[in-house]
Amino acid sequence: MKEVKHLKIEKDMGVSDLVRGMRGVGFGAGKIARAGEIMDKMFKDGDCKVFFGVAGAMVPCGMKQVILDVLDYTDIFVTTGANLTHDLIESLGEKHYKIENERIVDDVLLAEKGFDRIYNVLMKNGVYEKLEDFFKANFDSFSKCGNIKDFLWKIGELCPGGGILKKCYDKKIPIFCPGIADSGIGLMMWGRIAEGKTTNIDVFTDMKEIIDFSWTAKKTGVLYIGGGLPKNFIQQALQFSKGADYGIQITTDRPESGGSSGAPLKEGISWGKLSKDADFVDVVCDATIALPLIFGSIL
Amino acid sequence: MKEVKHLKIEKDMGVSDLVRGMRGVGFGAGKIARAGEIMDKMFKDGDCKVFFGVAGAMVPCGMKQVILDVLDYTDIFVTTGANLTHDLIESLGEKHYKIENERIVDDVLLAEKGFDRIYNVLMKNGVYEKLEDFFKANFDSFSKCGNIKDFLWKIGELCPGGGILKKCYDKKIPIFCPGIADSGIGLMMWGRIAEGKTTNIDVFTDMKEIIDFSWTAKKTGVLYIGGGLPKNFIQQALQFSKGADYGIQITTDRPESGGSSGAPLKEGISWGKLSKDADFVDVVCDATIALPLIFGSIL
Amino acid sequence: MKEVKHLKIEKDMGVSDLVRGMRGVGFGAGKIARAGEIMDKMFKDGDCKVFFGVAGAMVPCGMKQVILDVLDYTDIFVTTGANLTHDLIESLGEKHYKIENERIVDDVLLAEKGFDRIYNVLMKNGVYEKLEDFFKANFDSFSKCGNIKDFLWKIGELCPGGGILKKCYDKKIPIFCPGIADSGIGLMMWGRIAEGKTTNIDVFTDMKEIIDFSWTAKKTGVLYIGGGLPKNFIQQALQFSKGADYGIQITTDRPESGGSSGAPLKEGISWGKLSKDADFVDVVCDATIALPLIFGSIL
Amino acid sequence: MKEVKHLKIEKDMGVSDLVRGMRGVGFGAGKIARAGEIMDKMFKDGDCKVFFGVAGAMVPCGMKQVILDVLDYTDIFVTTGANLTHDLIESLGEKHYKIENERIVDDVLLAEKGFDRIYNVLMKNGVYEKLEDFFKANFDSFSKCGNIKDFLWKIGELCPGGGILKKCYDKKIPIFCPGIADSGIGLMMWGRIAEGKTTNIDVFTDMKEIIDFSWTAKKTGVLYIGGGLPKNFIQQALQFSKGADYGIQITTDRPESGGSSGAPLKEGISWGKLSKDADFVDVVCDATIALPLIFGSIL
Repeated sequence: MKEVKHLKIEKDMGVSDLVRGMRGVGFGAGKIARAGEIMDKMFKDGDCKVFFGVAGAMVPCGMKQVILDVLDYTDIFVTTGANLTHDLIESLGEKHYKIENERIVDDVLLAEKGFDRIYNVLMKNGVYEKLEDFFKANFDSFSKCGNIKDFLWKIGELCPGGGILKKCYDKKIPIFCPGIADSGIGLMMWGRIAEGKTTNIDVFTDMKEIIDFSWTAKKTGVLYIGGGLPKNFIQQALQFSKGADYGIQITTDRPESGGSSGAPLKEGISWGKLSKDADFVDVVCDATIALPLIFGSIL
Repeated sequence: MKEVKHLKIEKDMGVSDLVRGMRGVGFGAGKIARAGEIMDKMFKDGDCKVFFGVAGAMVPCGMKQVILDVLDYTDIFVTTGANLTHDLIESLGEKHYKIENERIVDDVLLAEKGFDRIYNVLMKNGVYEKLEDFFKANFDSFSKCGNIKDFLWKIGELCPGGGILKKCYDKKIPIFCPGIADSGIGLMMWGRIAEGKTTNIDVFTDMKEIIDFSWTAKKTGVLYIGGGLPKNFIQQALQFSKGADYGIQITTDRPESGGSSGAPLKEGISWGKLSKDADFVDVVCDATIALPLIFGSIL
Repeated sequence: MKEVKHLKIEKDMGVSDLVRGMRGVGFGAGKIARAGEIMDKMFKDGDCKVFFGVAGAMVPCGMKQVILDVLDYTDIFVTTGANLTHDLIESLGEKHYKIENERIVDDVLLAEKGFDRIYNVLMKNGVYEKLEDFFKANFDSFSKCGNIKDFLWKIGELCPGGGILKKCYDKKIPIFCPGIADSGIGLMMWGRIAEGKTTNIDVFTDMKEIIDFSWTAKKTGVLYIGGGLPKNFIQQALQFSKGADYGIQITTDRPESGGSSGAPLKEGISWGKLSKDADFVDVVCDATIALPLIFGSIL
Repeated sequence: MKEVKHLKIEKDMGVSDLVRGMRGVGFGAGKIARAGEIMDKMFKDGDCKVFFGVAGAMVPCGMKQVILDVLDYTDIFVTTGANLTHDLIESLGEKHYKIENERIVDDVLLAEKGFDRIYNVLMKNGVYEKLEDFFKANFDSFSKCGNIKDFLWKIGELCPGGGILKKCYDKKIPIFCPGIADSGIGLMMWGRIAEGKTTNIDVFTDMKEIIDFSWTAKKTGVLYIGGGLPKNFIQQALQFSKGADYGIQITTDRPESGGSSGAPLKEGISWGKLSKDADFVDVVCDATIALPLIFGSIL
């Protein structure tokens, strides 16, 4: 128990000062500050392997660069097929757009104009053509990969522009994406299979690598954006560790309906996924707001 | 626009009368009633192929029987590896438990006592032993499967008790679970791989079946519990249909942070996943409350 | 800790059977069942005084009749000025409406057509004319009331049709509404004050009655729909009891941002507003769904 | 529609640069940036009268100083009795506290130790003694006030330390708090009434002032923290304006259950509370995170 200290906003305040000022505040602000402290410790702890799980449409909405920068502190990256598809689409030269006037959003009109909507973000339906060309040109390289991680690194190696896939390949950061079939990338592979080609990418093989990683790490830390399969897949691997030593979760999902995305980190203590002595915090906030604040406070 | 009619609760009221009475009410109740009407139409429409997507811990919490009964009206089932693992655990004779006094829940104590927590539901950590025996005994059969659907049907064929996997096998309802590696079932397969055995279950192969199914259906309908990968995988397939004609989504996730689980169904119109003339409704409610009410109203 | 029992939905099932079946289920369904048990005990306990607090637009949306029926079991009623205004509007012969097609809701168009929107419920802007006539005709009776409760009973006495205000007057159920100025009823009183008339209704006087009531009750129980001022005003009075013995709260607000509406009931134990031995449950659900189910299960 | 621009977090970034960088991002971050732009315009527009409504426990949690600083740009302040009570408690020299370890929070233990809990913030139960002394000493001055605003200014005049009440009195910023009876301040007044003293503070009188203010303003702007009665009371007054020209709402409540706290600002267009040409944004975020960011970006 500590005394509440009222936050004072100063003119020309820096992000790190703002977050430091939030340390004495209750509710969400105090949790942002706590997350900053934990992130700082976790990223500086030489014994700690950092697992970074990203669900939600973080790439199309404009958080790609933040993810790229957080990857500099990350040992294992787990995300959705959707984020990787949107990353690849941008690497191929396409863009995402933002709806400026949200008073009325008409999905029928958007369909007619050829735009796909993700809340207030749009993508041209036509992007799939470039994607298809890329997969047609490189299918033989992809089909030789034996597991999903190698497949994703191969995309990173061959894609023309920068981005998450490219960086993970370049820096040899393992990317795990067990649900890759559920994405535009999956669709591109299906397109070739539908044309009669074959792939041989085993579903279970890269579990070995993530679990070995968890098993052998002296210490582990987790940073979850939005739950989903990325969180769950990391949590599963952590059952083979001594439990994570550091934990930050940023989500807007509720716990009461029992889903993993809204489950507080402390639930993981019962499973052995989180150490009972861990430094951890649940931040209930839109990740596009919380992550820049937290990460901005430690640079 | 219709006049609001005040709901009157009668003594000994039936579920279908209650839901009918909700038809004249605004907010959530009216959406329950609307979902009942849509479910009734969708299940009775002989031209309509029904896709049922289930995320969230619906099996451990006590909704297995409801899912089993909804499967009688379902053509394609997509769920998480977790639900299938919990289903198999019960087929092998194990149980789930419910915390009666929630005033204080101590995860450290639960860990010491050997219980894994999912909100207010518990599972004995020891269940994994039976699971391991089952996978050791049947690994050879499993490793021969070429895709996830066949693998899951094989589990259904070989598991001793009833349940979802068994029913899907018996009734030949295709189950898709692209994220199967992210589950206790995945762990069991990993265990064998770690012992040196090999599997050969391709990641992309069963996309062909679900997309063919969508492509060739005269009409399609969707019933989503909780979003996640099951919703997204069905939505992806529906891009190859004329857009779903019927839609019911039950979720407690918010749309503003941009995740698929909280996205309203109408977003799908822009993508071509939902027909612009569809009958659809978003029910923002805990699925353990909403699904029994809706399904109970149409029997 | 109890074994989870899977809910089975039967053909022609009654509401009370459905809710009884939810007793063995985790997450929200189990809480509905628990709320039914607590409501049953609380309503039957002859020593227990029941405080019923209703926030949210429960009258315009179509829950007026359910509230009227719950009032038969209620000793003290606390609500918002908005609910009482909408109740009076219906007593004066006006209606509320429900938007049938929610795909696009255009508030500019609604304003042009003269409809005021409350989520998917509408009210004609013109209703204020009847309201004004009623207050002009009866202002002298109203201005003589010395406290808010007497003022509200006087409206109930004089209004032509049935409804909540009428029933509370007829059955002498005290209605407390500390925020009455914040409502259409308040506006009507302001209208007369703006014309030069005077009122003399003291802000603090009826605190005495609700606190005396709490102080002298052998046992107390609370039923909260949606938090807000009604919950808080009852909680405040309960500090002068031994703490409520029974508690049911139905809300969709989150606890993390620290507001009273999302605060779980157990927080009240620290304040002495809830007995540490109380039977209580927090139901996180739209009240238009949860209240009919719970109340329907005990009739 | 604009191109999404990926946010880049720089070392030693300022808050205003961070928020400017969020301008190109979708989801919540973009709304923070939009809110910053609107706040800047609204505060600089010499013709615009600013209404500031604050619900939720913003004072106890550590946001008092931010509110004090925003009051420099505010013409009308509306808040809950709870916030004003906690402000007065601090003016009288008492403190609030923050729970540091939230893994287990035991309300029974807190009750035994004499602490009242508001999510993760605590207050000593003993603070009421100082409060009582203050009201006993000054009751005669308070009981002469004819409306709530004058009563609150009188508290501000007489209370020893600084704070919100003091500042509003000093700067003659009208404070409206229609629900004042629902608060510790209300309890203190009740205590004197219970001892036989009388007050004469009319419920409806200060509606005249807020509505006159709205009626005569050339332009109006609103800043809502958390909905509730403060938002609703301002919205009600705005029906007598041409509709607000600027609007910022920060809330975590959902719209689907129909409460005012979760209703998006655009609903107000149908009622005439918001101009159809208004600059407005709904920020779905914990206010302790969002408000410092937004306000910090414009200083």
